[in-house]
Amino acid sequence: MADFARELKPYIRDIPDFPEPGIIFRDITPLLGDAQALHKTIDALSAPFRAAPDHPAERIDHIVGIESRGFLFGMPLAYQLGTGFVPVRKRGKLPYTTISREYALEYGTNIVEVHADAIKPGERVLIVDDLLATGGTALAAMKLMETLGAQIVGAAFVIELRALDGRSRLAPYPIHVVVDY
Amino acid sequence: MADFARELKPYIRDIPDFPEPGIIFRDITPLLGDAQALHKTIDALSAPFRAAPDHPAERIDHIVGIESRGFLFGMPLAYQLGTGFVPVRKRGKLPYTTISREYALEYGTNIVEVHADAIKPGERVLIVDDLLATGGTALAAMKLMETLGAQIVGAAFVIELRALDGRSRLAPYPIHVVVDY
Repeated sequence: MADFARELKPYIRDIPDFPEPGIIFRDITPLLGDAQALHKTIDALSAPFRAAPDHPAERIDHIVGIESRGFLFGMPLAYQLGTGFVPVRKRGKLPYTTISREYALEYGTNIVEVHADAIKPGERVLIVDDLLATGGTALAAMKLMETLGAQIVGAAFVIELRALDGRSRLAPYPIHVVVDY
Repeated sequence: MADFARELKPYIRDIPDFPEPGIIFRDITPLLGDAQALHKTIDALSAPFRAAPDHPAERIDHIVGIESRGFLFGMPLAYQLGTGFVPVRKRGKLPYTTISREYALEYGTNIVEVHADAIKPGERVLIVDDLLATGGTALAAMKLMETLGAQIVGAAFVIELRALDGRSRLAPYPIHVVVDY
C-alpha cells in the first residue's frame, strides 16, 4: 500500500480553508480526472475483497455508499465485485419508506437515511466512502445497517485522516484505506 | 435494447407524488440493489462506447457525471471504459476555481458548477446521468463543457421520460438511453 499511496498523493490537491476557515480540504478531483490514477484507486480500494492466490474473495452482498462521494467509489466496486449497491442519503432524498439516524457534527447534527427494504437480515455489506475523518457519518451508516440486520464486513475509504482517529470509533469493524494523512 | 428494457423495468419502482404532488418518481434503488440487474444496466449503458466486432470504440477522455445519481452510473463507466471522471456539482460543493451555469426549473432556477481545470480544450467527453426528463440539467452540463472547449461525444441516461422531450433540447448531440417511459 505504501508505494501506491506515494504514487497517488500528487493527485490529491490540498485546498486550504474549505469549506470553512482552518480546514484543509483533500480535493480528489485531480485523481478522478486521471484515467490511470482513477483505475488504480478503484483496484486498490477493492483489493482485499477480491479473490487472490493467497485468499478467497470475501462474500459481499451489497456495497453501501454514502452520499455523495461514497457514490463515486462505491458503484465501481459494486460493478467490479458483482454485488448490489445501497445508497445512504441525506434526509429527504430517498423516495420510499426509510429509517434514519442522527449524528453529531462539530456544530449541530446531521441525518442520514436508507430505504427500509434495502437490506434483508443477514446480508453482508461493505460501507464505502471517500474519506475517513472523525467517522461520524460512517458510524451512522453502520448503525443503520445494524438496525436492518445486516452483517457488516467492514468499511473502505480512499483517504484516512489519522489524527482524527475515526478508525477507533468504527471498531471492531475492519477498516481498509488506500491513502492516509 | 427493447428486450433488456422489459427485463429491467420491474426493478424500477414508481413512487407517486414524490418529490411533489402529481410527479411519479422513478425509483432506481431496487435496480441498484440487485447485483445482476445493476451489472447489466452498466453494461447496457456503456455498450455503444465499447469496441464491438462491428464497430471500434469511440475515444472518450472523460465521463462527466451529474450530481448525485449521475455519479452512480458515471463512475462504473469511467472504470470500465478506462477514462477519467469529471463531477458536475450543485453550487458551492466544488472546492477549487469553478465555472457555473444557471438553468430554469419548473419553479425558479438551479446552478451547476464544474472545476475550471477539469477539461483541456479538445478533450472528448460523455455526459452521464440517471434520468433524462426535460434535459435542463444535462444541457447545462453540456454548456459548461462547451465553455471549457470539450468535444461532446453525446449523453447517456439509464431512463428517458419521452413525453418531456429532453432529447430535442440536447440536439444535435447523440443520446443513448437504456429504458424509456
